[in-house]
Amino acid sequence: MAVPPSTYPRHLLPLFLGLFQGALLLFFALFVTYDEPSAQAEDTSLANQVYSTFPFFQDIQVMLVVGLGLLLTFLPCYGFSALTHNFLLLNFSTQWALVLQGLLHHFHHGQIHLDLHKLLLSEFAAVTVLISVGAILGRASPCQLLVMATCEIPLYLASEWVIVTCLGVLDVGGTITIHVFSCYFGLGVSKALFKATQQPLHPKEAPTTSSDLRSLVGTLILWVFWPSFVAVLCQPGDAQHRAILNTLLAMSASAITTVVASSLLERDGKLSPGHLQNGSLAGGVAIGVVADMAVPPVAALALGSLSAVLCVLGFRFLTPFLARKLTLHDQCGIHNLHGLPGILGAAASVVAVLVVPKDTSGSHPSQLSPAGANASEALERQWGSRGVSGQALYQAVGLAVAAGASLLAGLLTGSALRLPCLARPPERLCFEDSLYFKIHDQAESPEPDSSAEEGALALKEQV
Amino acid sequence: MAVPPSTYPRHLLPLFLGLFQGALLLFFALFVTYDEPSAQAEDTSLANQVYSTFPFFQDIQVMLVVGLGLLLTFLPCYGFSALTHNFLLLNFSTQWALVLQGLLHHFHHGQIHLDLHKLLLSEFAAVTVLISVGAILGRASPCQLLVMATCEIPLYLASEWVIVTCLGVLDVGGTITIHVFSCYFGLGVSKALFKATQQPLHPKEAPTTSSDLRSLVGTLILWVFWPSFVAVLCQPGDAQHRAILNTLLAMSASAITTVVASSLLERDGKLSPGHLQNGSLAGGVAIGVVADMAVPPVAALALGSLSAVLCVLGFRFLTPFLARKLTLHDQCGIHNLHGLPGILGAAASVVAVLVVPKDTSGSHPSQLSPAGANASEALERQWGSRGVSGQALYQAVGLAVAAGASLLAGLLTGSALRLPCLARPPERLCFEDSLYFKIHDQAESPEPDSSAEEGALALKEQV
Amino acid sequence: MAVPPSTYPRHLLPLFLGLFQGALLLFFALFVTYDEPSAQAEDTSLANQVYSTFPFFQDIQVMLVVGLGLLLTFLPCYGFSALTHNFLLLNFSTQWALVLQGLLHHFHHGQIHLDLHKLLLSEFAAVTVLISVGAILGRASPCQLLVMATCEIPLYLASEWVIVTCLGVLDVGGTITIHVFSCYFGLGVSKALFKATQQPLHPKEAPTTSSDLRSLVGTLILWVFWPSFVAVLCQPGDAQHRAILNTLLAMSASAITTVVASSLLERDGKLSPGHLQNGSLAGGVAIGVVADMAVPPVAALALGSLSAVLCVLGFRFLTPFLARKLTLHDQCGIHNLHGLPGILGAAASVVAVLVVPKDTSGSHPSQLSPAGANASEALERQWGSRGVSGQALYQAVGLAVAAGASLLAGLLTGSALRLPCLARPPERLCFEDSLYFKIHDQAESPEPDSSAEEGALALKEQV
Repeated sequence: MAVPPSTYPRHLLPLFLGLFQGALLLFFALFVTYDEPSAQAEDTSLANQVYSTFPFFQDIQVMLVVGLGLLLTFLPCYGFSALTHNFLLLNFSTQWALVLQGLLHHFHHGQIHLDLHKLLLSEFAAVTVLISVGAILGRASPCQLLVMATCEIPLYLASEWVIVTCLGVLDVGGTITIHVFSCYFGLGVSKALFKATQQPLHPKEAPTTSSDLRSLVGTLILWVFWPSFVAVLCQPGDAQHRAILNTLLAMSASAITTVVASSLLERDGKLSPGHLQNGSLAGGVAIGVVADMAVPPVAALALGSLSAVLCVLGFRFLTPFLARKLTLHDQCGIHNLHGLPGILGAAASVVAVLVVPKDTSGSHPSQLSPAGANASEALERQWGSRGVSGQALYQAVGLAVAAGASLLAGLLTGSALRLPCLARPPERLCFEDSLYFKIHDQAESPEPDSSAEEGALALKEQV
Repeated sequence: MAVPPSTYPRHLLPLFLGLFQGALLLFFALFVTYDEPSAQAEDTSLANQVYSTFPFFQDIQVMLVVGLGLLLTFLPCYGFSALTHNFLLLNFSTQWALVLQGLLHHFHHGQIHLDLHKLLLSEFAAVTVLISVGAILGRASPCQLLVMATCEIPLYLASEWVIVTCLGVLDVGGTITIHVFSCYFGLGVSKALFKATQQPLHPKEAPTTSSDLRSLVGTLILWVFWPSFVAVLCQPGDAQHRAILNTLLAMSASAITTVVASSLLERDGKLSPGHLQNGSLAGGVAIGVVADMAVPPVAALALGSLSAVLCVLGFRFLTPFLARKLTLHDQCGIHNLHGLPGILGAAASVVAVLVVPKDTSGSHPSQLSPAGANASEALERQWGSRGVSGQALYQAVGLAVAAGASLLAGLLTGSALRLPCLARPPERLCFEDSLYFKIHDQAESPEPDSSAEEGALALKEQV
Repeated sequence: MAVPPSTYPRHLLPLFLGLFQGALLLFFALFVTYDEPSAQAEDTSLANQVYSTFPFFQDIQVMLVVGLGLLLTFLPCYGFSALTHNFLLLNFSTQWALVLQGLLHHFHHGQIHLDLHKLLLSEFAAVTVLISVGAILGRASPCQLLVMATCEIPLYLASEWVIVTCLGVLDVGGTITIHVFSCYFGLGVSKALFKATQQPLHPKEAPTTSSDLRSLVGTLILWVFWPSFVAVLCQPGDAQHRAILNTLLAMSASAITTVVASSLLERDGKLSPGHLQNGSLAGGVAIGVVADMAVPPVAALALGSLSAVLCVLGFRFLTPFLARKLTLHDQCGIHNLHGLPGILGAAASVVAVLVVPKDTSGSHPSQLSPAGANASEALERQWGSRGVSGQALYQAVGLAVAAGASLLAGLLTGSALRLPCLARPPERLCFEDSLYFKIHDQAESPEPDSSAEEGALALKEQV
């Protein structure tokens, strides 16, 4: 069906985005400035140290914009939307996180001093939105996605503040704070948005060979650059070197184990593209929380293998089970890629804290800013005072907080997304680029009287 | 139409390229050498400083070869040609610029000492060709493109010498010297080449969903690596850090504003793929000229937003207007992506020079070579002596020179391209990979007597 | 034919991979550990020096996983398999090489100390497998490929030990040790596997426009990052700078010369996609062995041009000749991309050693580990003692060893691959993703009774 209805409301998106961009300009004009040129000799200045993360930053940008974007294009008629919405949400959420984070953490003497490190932290916040979207991809309107991002960013910042700053949970790669949080937030949104109605299989939901291939290329790009994502916030030196190696090992083990698991679990022994696209990355999710600890290499391999098995098992059994029993819809299987491996990683961190000797070379999130350095020293003291079993307990509490709070927050956000003005597309027009883009569909058969009918349908289904 | 005419002349391309490559070999044998191994301790040598730009250089190569290549594949039957011609022109133009630049600037004692920095400057020269091609993409033969590159490189070098060295215009990201120059050069070529005949819409000109998607991936690759392009020639330290941040902010604002503008300007509120592919990058073009100045962050955001609006307005109104009134053909809309944002950036630099306090930490083009360092000191003195209002005037003069000279040069070059021996493809065979490549067209229906007919057509239309 | 036979055996792959991954876990648990946190000041420690190769390492990962993967997707119905098998083999071979290399070279006091440099050397070993696969792509089962990898890795390590350590051959970019070795190994496997039966042209062997375009994108990614591959093992400083420049020049010359050669050799002057996809990279293969030597820039250009000519000539004349006369099947033309340019590079290194003044700044493979540094000093003494003509002789001997030993080893390995249990797909099911993947074929016409028929066919053809 090439011609989408002319009655579908599309005025809210530019309105919302335009107002946001205007407000952002105002905020920047009033409060945001760059660091003063460093007074010291240039080569040793703090600012230079900060922007030495630029290569890592670029790697992460490639992951999020190109890699994740392509991974989401597995829906054959929804590739343009997936790529564009991912790109739009990344920019929107980063800017929004920059504002909130600036107000919360970096507001000194009426000014926020912007640097690459703060931009990086905002981009990390935006990642949670990009993951959560996976649960409702194709069935939500761009406006709904933007409202979701608007809600998710402050909630993430609060949750991260509680988990990292208050509880002192160690999580250098964002396994708990980013992956677990965004997964259960997304599932909560999906549950509240689609309520009890089980989503029927849409004819445009099935990937084609070429969309699956495109999506696999996205996976491979993510796979290659994942070590940069995990290691960027580690202290340069031994800890960062170890984080890179651990991630490489975990992801290599994931890649091989995914093939084993997929082949064993599919009835005829053929590999499922979906398993490959997700399972290969599961190790990267799980390893994040222990990547910089002095765990032995075998632990990274084992974690990679186990998380791939969990991911494939999740796709094979858990996702259909949840869809049937809880009418929980998870379009991209984010629970299998981010939820299960995230929980596994958190559990591994509990063990690691108990078993692994504490590395004195230091490696903590946000050590790059002076504030972060102080925080990490405080954290060091905290850990010292609470002992390893105390820290292990806090890791577990951190997981519970991330999962519980995000599920609740997601449910509330999802309810808000049911507002009719957000224009959820009617089922018949889901997974359809031509609803949002002036795009020439392959099937060029205009149906003369479809517009009116769909308009009516749209009105009816939005209730 | 799968079978292109056997009479289309294809012997000139290998002849031209072969002679060029032979001459280049001779030139290199006679005059080009590497720098002597540095006598000093290795870690501190100048050579090492030079090759520390290698990561930036790689980013720029990815942009030009993969990103820009893919962006140009939006013509559904011309993807192979777009990608290959872009790749071929990049290599040809870089080598040609290496020769000319060596002769003009780096010829000492009968020798040219090659290093990565000189290669980078040559690649910047080649970028002008790759941009200009956009105006005539699909309707020009490879030979015409090569002749155009042959003319454009020396003209660019002359123009850049006048603007940067003589006039002392500040333009670290090449907004004026590269983007504005190449845009008006390309438009001049297009005008002279196609004369007064308005180009009818070709049936193969309309993008398909899959070619649009491919092109968008190219945009995203360009978007991610653009900060490297703008910041590579800045002095490492504060200036480079600021250039990176300014570019990131401008491009983020462009991405969001493009969605707003496209949605508001299209009648049914749907987004146009062409707007997204170009508008998202407009901020990067505009920011180049002020990226390393101590402008406030809000200026980068505003410049990004404004340039995206200009770009989308250009696509919506200006391009059709120019096509109708001036019979000016601009296939890829380079005027909207490079011309309008370039002029905006130049105007912003006039304001910035007047308003912004002069940064004493120093950041100038080509500061990496000792000659460049001297030049920049001279420039420093020059600016010092002429005052800020003088410098502002020179920025405006630089813009006028770039636009005026390039338009004139383009018109002359375009006239040269009308030589019949350069084998412009007849209208019917435009936008067609199979004219140049042994490629299996989707439509595998050979038309028996088409060759003779097209041969005749070709002869007739070339006049 | 969309429905592959249900009788095709698929149980061996997960069994083999599962056992391997289990054994690897055991091996890592017993023997592998990370380097101790360096006792010295962090910034100057050896470990930090090692992980400063991380950006190069990432570039190489992109080349192998994304670039090479896409290059191999030129078979239109085999893209998913090509990409996945390439990815799987990279991970399997790297892990396997890590084990073997650890046992052979790095086993101290019952422990192997893992670092990024050792991982990189293992990845280099894996490259040989990825290249060799090109000879039999599409006609071999995944199990056959894994068994081939299992055999090739130890044989490569032995050959590399003989060539580099015993013979003291200079080969910083792996031209002889990697490219020549893997090419003749692959051809040996192909010859032994397919025996005297000339492979008929399969209907799914012909690339389509879109698969050719995808493959070209892969080429371009490889082209961009190739300098990192050649230069990663050079000593940072002058030698690495020179290696980068030489590679850039060689590849630029290759790109242009390929167009010349392809256009001249094809009857109607059209360019062949296959020539472009391979010829553009030939210069990178040839330059590897002399990249860090103090050769003049013109030598790099000449080597790039010549290797591109050889590559195109190989595709045009040698491959069909070998297929006809020796019934030697070379699916991807690895002999043209890796064999001929490799031999050319080795010959050039003989000349270079004789002619070029020895660079005293030092640049040798594996100089990054202390053991490597000692080895390179020994090598320095060796070269000193044997004189330039002696070293030239050793370069030639190294080439002969690499080509001869690998051909023999390949023939033996190929014979082993004929074991029926390895389930070579029957001719009719070759080049077919749907044999291994749950993928929705474009042609969705299920043939009811094809399964039984193909099962019988499979049994018959496997003998």
